[in-house]
Amino acid sequence: MSKHLTKRSDNYSKWYNELVVKADLAENSAVRGCMVIKPYGYAIWEKIQGELDKMFKATGHENAYFPLLVPKHLFEAEEKNAEGFAKECAVVTHYRLRSDEKDKTKLIVDPQAKLEEELVIRPTSEAIIWNTYKNWIQSYRDLPIKINQWANVMRWEMRTRLFLRTSEFLWQEGHTAHASKDEAIEEAKLINGIYAKFAKEFMAMPVIEGVKSESERFAGAVETYCIEALMQDGKALQAGTSHFLGQNFAKAFDVKYTNQEGKQDYVWATSWGVSTRLMGALIMSHSDDNGLVLPPKLAPFKVVIVPIYRNKEQFNQVSEKANEIIEKLEAENISVKFDNRDTHKPGWKFAEYEMKGVPLRIGIGPKDLEKNTVELARRDKLTKSFVNQNTLIDTIKTTLVDIQENLYQNASDFMQNNTHQVSNYNEFKETINNKGGFVDCYWDGSVETEEKIKKELKATIRCILSVENIEGKTCVFSGNDAAARVLYAKAY
Amino acid sequence: MSKHLTKRSDNYSKWYNELVVKADLAENSAVRGCMVIKPYGYAIWEKIQGELDKMFKATGHENAYFPLLVPKHLFEAEEKNAEGFAKECAVVTHYRLRSDEKDKTKLIVDPQAKLEEELVIRPTSEAIIWNTYKNWIQSYRDLPIKINQWANVMRWEMRTRLFLRTSEFLWQEGHTAHASKDEAIEEAKLINGIYAKFAKEFMAMPVIEGVKSESERFAGAVETYCIEALMQDGKALQAGTSHFLGQNFAKAFDVKYTNQEGKQDYVWATSWGVSTRLMGALIMSHSDDNGLVLPPKLAPFKVVIVPIYRNKEQFNQVSEKANEIIEKLEAENISVKFDNRDTHKPGWKFAEYEMKGVPLRIGIGPKDLEKNTVELARRDKLTKSFVNQNTLIDTIKTTLVDIQENLYQNASDFMQNNTHQVSNYNEFKETINNKGGFVDCYWDGSVETEEKIKKELKATIRCILSVENIEGKTCVFSGNDAAARVLYAKAY
Repeated sequence: MSKHLTKRSDNYSKWYNELVVKADLAENSAVRGCMVIKPYGYAIWEKIQGELDKMFKATGHENAYFPLLVPKHLFEAEEKNAEGFAKECAVVTHYRLRSDEKDKTKLIVDPQAKLEEELVIRPTSEAIIWNTYKNWIQSYRDLPIKINQWANVMRWEMRTRLFLRTSEFLWQEGHTAHASKDEAIEEAKLINGIYAKFAKEFMAMPVIEGVKSESERFAGAVETYCIEALMQDGKALQAGTSHFLGQNFAKAFDVKYTNQEGKQDYVWATSWGVSTRLMGALIMSHSDDNGLVLPPKLAPFKVVIVPIYRNKEQFNQVSEKANEIIEKLEAENISVKFDNRDTHKPGWKFAEYEMKGVPLRIGIGPKDLEKNTVELARRDKLTKSFVNQNTLIDTIKTTLVDIQENLYQNASDFMQNNTHQVSNYNEFKETINNKGGFVDCYWDGSVETEEKIKKELKATIRCILSVENIEGKTCVFSGNDAAARVLYAKAY
Repeated sequence: MSKHLTKRSDNYSKWYNELVVKADLAENSAVRGCMVIKPYGYAIWEKIQGELDKMFKATGHENAYFPLLVPKHLFEAEEKNAEGFAKECAVVTHYRLRSDEKDKTKLIVDPQAKLEEELVIRPTSEAIIWNTYKNWIQSYRDLPIKINQWANVMRWEMRTRLFLRTSEFLWQEGHTAHASKDEAIEEAKLINGIYAKFAKEFMAMPVIEGVKSESERFAGAVETYCIEALMQDGKALQAGTSHFLGQNFAKAFDVKYTNQEGKQDYVWATSWGVSTRLMGALIMSHSDDNGLVLPPKLAPFKVVIVPIYRNKEQFNQVSEKANEIIEKLEAENISVKFDNRDTHKPGWKFAEYEMKGVPLRIGIGPKDLEKNTVELARRDKLTKSFVNQNTLIDTIKTTLVDIQENLYQNASDFMQNNTHQVSNYNEFKETINNKGGFVDCYWDGSVETEEKIKKELKATIRCILSVENIEGKTCVFSGNDAAARVLYAKAY
């Protein structure tokens, strides 16, 4: 397979699609819109899962598992939620296949095995979960319930792209129940903060925290908190959302509790999620024309060692040294891969790990053994240097920290340089069409304005930054009094 | 909720069903045959996952993710596999709902959104995976592929029971591809050994390793290796299976590779899995009439501390001591829960954690503070003792080891005492009908014998123990020459 990538400047979208496949992250499957996540891609997702799971548990959340299928009548119960997802539901109507009378090697759907009620593959699990919570909640003593689920969901998307928009995707969905409105809002904010912290500290990806406008809100939510990231091509990407659901689902499923005063009230809810879409965000935050660039904290292995040798004797000598280094790295809890395959040449391996974004690469050959050095290559800056073996472990430790910080700094600089304040609609149009990035401006709060801008420029409000300090400010589009300061962008 | 359980001796099946619910492990959902795995139950499953995942990775396996849905034509490709699962397939036929013209609050399946080809929710993933491997494998350099997937699967079961048999269940499924037959067989055996080791060391559950008879084999396999456990009621439970698939799937999906000599050959395959069914096996190996009994290595928390107090001052004093103990336990990596809720009394909590099978319970009150003791209760033996606080941590460490060993020893003794060698069919019948357990006997190797015994006694060959040393032995049923020594039992 050729490891040549289209340049980002030539065709960003093509570059992305090629990179996902060539870095062995994922590929399209035989099922329309569904992907195969390959071992290397899945190893990154496992890192993401592991870190987020720790953060959820540290804040008092537990994992559980709810059914994949949702009976249609439950799915219907919360009207807005149902309306929001009905058009993209995969529906199970039968529970058996049988052999085809005309051709015994073929199977057909058995018409005798039609379900009385159709089942929807969960596009999200509020319905099935609130129907369950109903039985778990009687009194304030049963609250709060703070549950997270790692699961697959299905939304029948018409236009799909690996990781960014797939019919089936993997995610976590938190679903919490609270005795008070304030507590539920606090929870939704807490989680949005966790998402922002994770993006920053692990993905090395700066994000803007804010709330969604009504038209961009989750179907069934009262308020949607979100984190928005900016990709290298100037398009925004919604990386995580946390919803305050008010009492909407409690009312739809009749979930009441008895409070400390002995009165009945509906329960307050939140839900929140991030998905394998984060993989797309990660890729488009740091990678370059040579391939993937991974922040060390999420790399399946942080260091790869490639032996350079001409014969068996050299291979043995180099391997011995490599194994010493591996032992020391593992003692420091630094994951390392030793690629000692003799089916591929060093040059091929160098290109391979560059494509796969391994943060640090060690090359070691007979000359290095003589000089007590190794060649250390840094993926983010594409620099190489010879490092004395005596100081190698320390150099690796500090360099990994530096790579993590450098990636975050670059992405932050990029976001800052591509966030534009505009004061009139001409500037707005000019910026959206030619520069891209975030447009920081004032909005009159009307759906009409949102719709007109969306229609004309395909740009949407990514989030509301603030509804304060808006006196005297006017909407960039209508010129009316501003209702909020917002971030506009074209988005994934 | 009453925490009273039906006694095992009165109705084992009822005892099991009640225990699963009352120990907060799982419950039935609104979807026929599908369960909700509650946080406490899921925490045990996470422990199981974590340990198995480590063992798979330590033997060179990687995780990945393949689509939930399988196009019907792919599902059909391996004929025996398709035949084996066709009758229990949930089938997706449509990809959209729309509002009902007659009642706008209702949704109906949109007839316009019928799929051209139906999609099956994976009952197992050989088809979708081998269709993918086809593109990954060209040469011997691409082999072996050793991939595992943690996923949900769906088999439309008519009679379901929590954990033991549910329409949707969680599992891991390994799918490997090899250049040689021997290597594939080695892999299948290796994994069966891992399953046996896991059962023994973590679940404290002894198992018999063997191979399945042809009629009990996985649909599409050449050989099925298995581990079989024995439950307290004398019924066997298939706890894990590992299949040597020969070249069946490679031929069905035309997956060939070029070997080192430059010749083309079909690839050899294995697949293997354990599921949430292990939860049922765990429950039925150790639990008693008071509730769940968990081996310490799989307990979500190994120790629970219940404070005993009459007023706020006592609560504070006791809590201070409890926190000291917690700090020491956590320093030793021993998970502990401090149940300091003031909404429930100590007696209620004692019953609760007994039902939930927490290995050790510490009760601590004002008198203990005076005497520098705590009360330590051991779940497996239901014994209590006062332990000096100075030696508490050491006592806990040794007691946890002892509990793990004691559970295994008890289960092993039970299996040994309930494995019966029989030499004629009358003894066989008598044993199966009245004693239960494993029946160790000789079989003539014919499907007819298997079928007749199954029909008459509902007992099946759990596994073939050996095909050696059978000279002069005769089949317990037919009296014909023996083909194998087998274990018979009634089974879950």
